[in-house]
This record gives sequence, C-alpha cells and structure tokens, in this order.
Amino acid sequence: MQLQREKVEAALQSVFPMDWAIPGTLSEAMNYSLLAGGKRLRPILVLAAAEAVAGQETAADRAMLFACAVEMIHTYSLIHDDLPAMDNDDFRRGRQTNHKVFGEAMAILAGDGLLTHAFHVAAQAASRGVPAERVLAVVGELSRYAGPTGMVGGQVDDMLGEQGLTSLEQLENIHLHKTSDLIAFSLRAGGHAAEADDKQLHAYGLFGRNVGLAFQIQDDILDLTGNEAKLGKPVKSDERQEKVTYPYLLGLDESRKRVAELTREANETLLQAGLAKPEPLIGIAEYLLNRDH
Amino acid sequence: MQLQREKVEAALQSVFPMDWAIPGTLSEAMNYSLLAGGKRLRPILVLAAAEAVAGQETAADRAMLFACAVEMIHTYSLIHDDLPAMDNDDFRRGRQTNHKVFGEAMAILAGDGLLTHAFHVAAQAASRGVPAERVLAVVGELSRYAGPTGMVGGQVDDMLGEQGLTSLEQLENIHLHKTSDLIAFSLRAGGHAAEADDKQLHAYGLFGRNVGLAFQIQDDILDLTGNEAKLGKPVKSDERQEKVTYPYLLGLDESRKRVAELTREANETLLQAGLAKPEPLIGIAEYLLNRDH
Repeated sequence: MQLQREKVEAALQSVFPMDWAIPGTLSEAMNYSLLAGGKRLRPILVLAAAEAVAGQETAADRAMLFACAVEMIHTYSLIHDDLPAMDNDDFRRGRQTNHKVFGEAMAILAGDGLLTHAFHVAAQAASRGVPAERVLAVVGELSRYAGPTGMVGGQVDDMLGEQGLTSLEQLENIHLHKTSDLIAFSLRAGGHAAEADDKQLHAYGLFGRNVGLAFQIQDDILDLTGNEAKLGKPVKSDERQEKVTYPYLLGLDESRKRVAELTREANETLLQAGLAKPEPLIGIAEYLLNRDH
Repeated sequence: MQLQREKVEAALQSVFPMDWAIPGTLSEAMNYSLLAGGKRLRPILVLAAAEAVAGQETAADRAMLFACAVEMIHTYSLIHDDLPAMDNDDFRRGRQTNHKVFGEAMAILAGDGLLTHAFHVAAQAASRGVPAERVLAVVGELSRYAGPTGMVGGQVDDMLGEQGLTSLEQLENIHLHKTSDLIAFSLRAGGHAAEADDKQLHAYGLFGRNVGLAFQIQDDILDLTGNEAKLGKPVKSDERQEKVTYPYLLGLDESRKRVAELTREANETLLQAGLAKPEPLIGIAEYLLNRDH
C-alpha cells in the first residue's frame, strides 16, 4: 500500500502539463490542496481494483490516470466543503484550508479548476492503452457518481438535513452519496481499466458501497475515541457541532459491529466475483476496519 | 436561429433524467439558472458548426448533447461568477441571481452539479451515433477549454487584474480565455459531431477565437451605448465599476472597427475551410456584429 501511495503522489505531481499556460496563483492554489498528502484511499482503490481483475501489477499503470482523476474530484469537494458558506473550516489535516490561504474567490476557482481538469486527466487514459469505449464509460460514471445524483447530491442532503436528522436511514442515505459513491466509482474505474466483465463491475459497485459506509462509520467512531496526535485533528468535534453520527444514533458498540459486518459483506462480494487476485483489495478493507487514524 | 433556439430549450429541459434521485432543492437551483433563457449563443454555434460540415440539418441532432453540455458549463460559470466572494451580483437577465434565491451554499453546489453533469451529457453523445473516439476528443476539449488553462484561468486573470490592467494585450488575453475559449470549443464540438477533418477543426478554433473577441467587444460597446430596456440590464455599469474595457482603452470608434475586422477575419477563415455549407455560421457572426442587445 505504501508503494502504491508513493506512485500516486508522483503521478499527482504531473497532472497539469508543464507547457499549459495556467495562471500562477491558480496553479499554486490547486496544488496546495491536491499535494497536501492524505491517505490517498480512493486512488489506491482504483489501482488495487485494476490489479485484482488482471491478476498482475502492470494493470495498475493503465489505471493511474483514473486514480489521479478521482483524487482531484475528492480534493475539489474538500475545498468547496470547507468554504465559509459551507462548513466554514479553517484547518484540514493540520494545515490552513484553501480559502484561508488564497481567499474565498480563488478557493472557489481552484475547486472548479480541479473538478474540470479531472475529466481531462480521465479522458487521457486512452493514450495509456485503455479502449475508448471503456474510457468513455469511466467519464460517464465519474460524472454520475460525483454529480447531482451522487456526491454533490449527498452534500446537499447533508446540508439540508443537518438540524433535523433522526433516522438511520436518512443518515445512511447521505453517506451513501457523500462517501460511498466516489469509492464505488474508484473500484469500477479500476475495473474498467483492466476490462472487467459486468459481474465484476457489479461486485465492485457493491463492495465500494459497503466499504464506503464502513469507512464513514469508522470516521465517526474515531472522532469519539481516537487519539488527537494520530488523527492530526481535534477529537469530539462532531459532538461539539451537534452532528448526528452513527455512534449518536446506534451507540459505540453497535457502530463497531456495523463496521465489522459491512466489511465482512464487502469481502464476501469480492470472493464471489471471479477476480484473478482479490487479496490486496480485501487487505485494504481490513485496514479500514482496524485503522486508528 | 429562432428554430434552433427552441430545439435547444427543449433539449435543456431534459438533461437531468427523470428517474435520477436528485435532491429537490438542488434540481430547482440548477434549473432556475439553466432554464432562465438567454441567447443560447454557444449551443446554437454547436449545432450550426455541425450543419456547416455535414451540409444537412440532421447533423445538428447528433450534436445536441454537446450543445446542452456547453450551455451547462456556461451556466455554472455565471452562477459562480455572481457569488458574493466573486462579482457579488444580485441580478442577472432581470432576475435575482442564484445565491440570492437559494443561498450561497446551494449556489456553489448547483454550479458544481451543473459542471459535473455537463460531462455526463457530453459523454452520452455516443448513444446518438457519434463515434467513441470523437466523443472522447470532445470531453477532453471541453475540460481543456473550460478548465484552468481556459475559462477558469481567464476568470482568475480577470479577478487578479481588475485594478491594474493597462495594456490591450492583457485585456485581450483575459477575454480569449474567459469568452473565446468556450466559443471555440462550441465550434469544434459541433465539428467533431459531424466528423470534421483537421483543417476544418483548426478553422473552427480560429473562427471561435475571433467571434468570441468580437462578441466581448460588442458587449463592452453596448454597455456604453445600449438601450436599457433592450439589454435587460443597467447600462454604463462598467464605468461605475471602473472596469477596463475595449472602449476605455481604444475609444468607441476604434472598438467598433475592431469588431468589424474580427468578424471579417472570422468569416474569411470559414470560407477557406472547405465546409459544405458555411452560410448559417457566417449569418451568426453578422448577427453578433449588428446586435443591439
């Protein structure tokens, strides 16, 4: 996983071609957030999903541009979510948020730039040997999972529901779109890069859905029980902001059980999908279950 | 042109599939701006460009999804430009701006949703008979002309240059990206839909560049000399906001000459591109030169 992460970091350094005339400040603002580290969970899932279908590591190279594209989409969503009109956050991963450094207008435009350019990066995958029909499928899915019916829709539901959330169903629906959709996309994009069949793509969609939910519940649990130094952010912020979370609705024990259950379901789906080498993907799911930051 | 506009209006009504679960308020906010009328210049250029290559009207049908996509991109850019952190405008085309009606957070998300979904709409063109390679080329170009090196980049330059602009070159560079890039894209997208050759695509890029600049200069002229009722907005706003414009730098007469010159150049490019039927496109350029609103 560490090796994959380093490959992703290197690839993200060059998503903006050197000979393109991008205004200097815009370039700086986009890279400030894109190259700020983080787990790189989504790109790693893209690469691992491609490998699991093909059964060999070289498949990851063909999927790298999809990996970069999904991280650019994730990054733009963080920049816009942090804006004063949205969550109004001053810090992320121990650094000032984009608008605190570059101003609100530039942060909006940096987000727009990353979002728009992500599709350029994804479309370039044809030059790495992915068939045009597959690249087109990925572009369509990126738009669908990240757009009004996916991540953007989840963000809207989250914003509108902040005060009045009462049921687990509502909470789950928000996370399915805010978190799971982009993770399901990551899996399917990796699958397309390795020319997965429909059964495998379907399994990846389910796996991504469950892993995404488990990831979110684990996030809620760590906010309550985690170690500030390891997390790199203050704990119990959900409580202070009176956010409705899984532990709030279900209790801590039940939430932990839910993470274990979702992870088990996710792994079973994978084992029945006829993948050449599902183990690294299952390893990532286990990591999510056991992480402490 | 009126007929094409009506076809575009009808197509824009159904860019969001009925069976997609989009949060109601988000849907409302996106459609509020997308269906607010306007000249629909960009989509009309997409359709006319396809017709000019193919020499028959049916070519426009294959280009319709590209026409919708470019109007969605144009609309998102207006929503974000109007935000308090950007131009802070309360009115557009005689109606309240998106954030005045739906709030700032929803306006940001409505823009993000339109921008993201535009790529879905464009990618669907394969189902209308456009070859996958051409659709992929259009997706890549949409991202490039609308992104950090295109429209978003122009918006950044405009924002950063607002106080200190002194040269015609700087002003032209801003408009080339803020306005011309998306118009050049429109032409080329229509060309791709009709499987234009490289010479035609190149001519479309140049034509779009010049028509875009002429359009912008004419906008500046009308702001100074136009009729408020016809324009649907207050005149002389550029003067009040101390904006550096073409008439400010060149004078009114010289600006008018520049519009005529750019239009003539644009039309000559078209006549030498080996198009089957360039007349409707030339008609649109003439309309831009002579419009009073």
